[in-house]
Amino acid sequence: MNAEIIAVGSELLLGQIVNSNARFLSQQLAVLGINVFYHTVVGDNPDRLRSAIEIAEKRSNLIIFTGGLGPTKDDLTKETIARHLGKELVMDIAALESIELFFKKTNRVMTENNKKQALVLEGSTILQNNHGMAPGMMVENGNCIYMLLPGPPKEMEPMFLQFGRAALSNQVKTNDKIVSRVLRFFGIGEASLETEIMDLIEQQTNPTIAPLAADGECTLRLTAKHQDIQTAESMLDETESKIRARAGEFLYGYDNTSLVAELMKLLKEKNVKISAAESLTGGLFQQELTSFPGVSSVFKGGVVCYTNEVKEKVLGVKKETIENYGVVSQECAKELAENVAALVSADIGISFTGVAGPDELEGKPVGTVYIGISIKGKQTVVEKLELGGSREANRTRSVKYGCYYLIKHLQESQKAN
Amino acid sequence: MNAEIIAVGSELLLGQIVNSNARFLSQQLAVLGINVFYHTVVGDNPDRLRSAIEIAEKRSNLIIFTGGLGPTKDDLTKETIARHLGKELVMDIAALESIELFFKKTNRVMTENNKKQALVLEGSTILQNNHGMAPGMMVENGNCIYMLLPGPPKEMEPMFLQFGRAALSNQVKTNDKIVSRVLRFFGIGEASLETEIMDLIEQQTNPTIAPLAADGECTLRLTAKHQDIQTAESMLDETESKIRARAGEFLYGYDNTSLVAELMKLLKEKNVKISAAESLTGGLFQQELTSFPGVSSVFKGGVVCYTNEVKEKVLGVKKETIENYGVVSQECAKELAENVAALVSADIGISFTGVAGPDELEGKPVGTVYIGISIKGKQTVVEKLELGGSREANRTRSVKYGCYYLIKHLQESQKAN
Repeated sequence: MNAEIIAVGSELLLGQIVNSNARFLSQQLAVLGINVFYHTVVGDNPDRLRSAIEIAEKRSNLIIFTGGLGPTKDDLTKETIARHLGKELVMDIAALESIELFFKKTNRVMTENNKKQALVLEGSTILQNNHGMAPGMMVENGNCIYMLLPGPPKEMEPMFLQFGRAALSNQVKTNDKIVSRVLRFFGIGEASLETEIMDLIEQQTNPTIAPLAADGECTLRLTAKHQDIQTAESMLDETESKIRARAGEFLYGYDNTSLVAELMKLLKEKNVKISAAESLTGGLFQQELTSFPGVSSVFKGGVVCYTNEVKEKVLGVKKETIENYGVVSQECAKELAENVAALVSADIGISFTGVAGPDELEGKPVGTVYIGISIKGKQTVVEKLELGGSREANRTRSVKYGCYYLIKHLQESQKAN
Repeated sequence: MNAEIIAVGSELLLGQIVNSNARFLSQQLAVLGINVFYHTVVGDNPDRLRSAIEIAEKRSNLIIFTGGLGPTKDDLTKETIARHLGKELVMDIAALESIELFFKKTNRVMTENNKKQALVLEGSTILQNNHGMAPGMMVENGNCIYMLLPGPPKEMEPMFLQFGRAALSNQVKTNDKIVSRVLRFFGIGEASLETEIMDLIEQQTNPTIAPLAADGECTLRLTAKHQDIQTAESMLDETESKIRARAGEFLYGYDNTSLVAELMKLLKEKNVKISAAESLTGGLFQQELTSFPGVSSVFKGGVVCYTNEVKEKVLGVKKETIENYGVVSQECAKELAENVAALVSADIGISFTGVAGPDELEGKPVGTVYIGISIKGKQTVVEKLELGGSREANRTRSVKYGCYYLIKHLQESQKAN
């Protein structure tokens, strides 16, 4: 089954909102084994909507519409589909009662135009709206299935999960299940990663391998199709192990994880406490770490040492160190990491000092970054980066590299023990 | 001029990412007076991409593509367009040099497939990529303009703003200029704001008024159309003054500003230095502040005091204060703000202590937040919030409220002087 998602709404074409519905539905349809080949956005205009429907019917046999089911004059999705298919709109008594109840419950007066929301395509299956007023519906015509869903995600998502999904899985003729796995890499560029596994990508049919780069990380999405979900998983395992053999050292996690989430897991496993001294990253590392609930078991606190004064006065970096080497130096990074750990009695201290940009500092180019890592009972190490991107990119990548190197060093000390 | 935005990428059809590029470009095109009638998303498949191009050419005279310009085999946008238009791809020397430089600067080895990124459509205008490798391009053919932009928003957005916008405004045939202004409000809900100005919204034709809520803030986008840009601006002024008369006290800035940017401006104006003690916000306030270049003239540094130990040991909060009132208290917030300012010799200290969630703390419900504000020569004030949202919302809103209250207090002390 090949699907197309048509979002109806001029607010999307004006850029007032983003089409998050298409994303949600695409994820849902993939799990059902339904291919999504197109997303379309069209405004609140009956002629252009009708033409979009005609195009969609030629290339898809499932069309899911979102939006345009509301009470106002702008809302014309079902009216346009009705005219196009030569079907009547009929009043759905259950939907009408539910709308009346909604107004009663919220102590508001129901205006006449709200009744319009209870009109449905004749012969359609109604999808109840438990989070708003306009019901959804599904109707078959010729070789095509039409599903109409409301626009607000707070109504559409629960409606699809509760009713839409089941209605569709009855229609899916294939028994194939689709299983996906995202492999996350760091420390290797997208092109290099692809070079490593070029032949695997070229041979790909099932599972498929799709590379994607974002924010200095690379991911590979593996997708396998099989009637038996366990077999599909084994197919993914097999492809993953081939990829691991080539680039396993850069693989750090799966699916929706992140470097900081993996670091957090490792700190918990090892039952150690961390602290941070942040100069160029200005608190970004600590703020990402503290975005996780329960972080207080592994994180004590730290210092944002944006000025030399704070580095010296609060973190006790030696005046000579700054005079002789500058703050953007291996020596300063080392003292910062060791001293912040000592200041808050933590097992680990990590420091970030460097040139975020846009201007160079101490004659060092933008993107020069030193990351100090002090682990109790071990020699402090300092990693140097040469990033050279925008201020924002330099800051976010520094934090990612910090997590990456700290994970490596913690894993090494594990092996050494 | 009628435009269509075609996003190319299977990751969009799998629901891995949302099509935020279409939103950004739609907003930009509206300002240029270019109608956007369709968004299309198509996968990394040459046949389906080509068919999408053919459909777009029949209904649009500007097609903007995003994505598929990268180094990998999946990236096939320009190859498909070249074949479709019967144009050659030629090596752009400047782009190639820029890619080589990028690898040199980041000390990475350039693989052969990266060269592919420097191939451009013959006869096209090159749009330089200052935030990545693949250049964009614009080419005219028949009645249609084709603009190709990279997929990552961090590359696409600055490229469009710096080069794409100017290239398009030369092409726009209409005499109407569209002028937009975004009014930013804080401390008032979207529904309340809309109620205040309902009659203005209902009367709107030109300028239009579009409300939008996000992240605890509300914005109103005013858009006026007129041949004369100055007249359009006056129309906006008039509408703005009507809105100000109703809700002016909540208006804090315009367009792409933010509360933290406004705070930064004010600190620079007053030539004062700030420091921060962050508990529940974990460094978020300081990380937002340090995202601005040149912040070192107003920000010294601060402490992330996630545990009681750090509050006491590093920031000198009295043991009795914590024992008697807890860390989520007016008393603790006051000491944190005063002590962090003293620690780094700053003019202003701001503190954030509270319950981010998901669990309550010290018997205080999730969303209870105290913000301490200590300004040199003035009595310390503590503001209490009762937010009660998700962990993430509580943290980001706390920072926004901190900026908002600090701006208010700094403005008051200005008036008092």
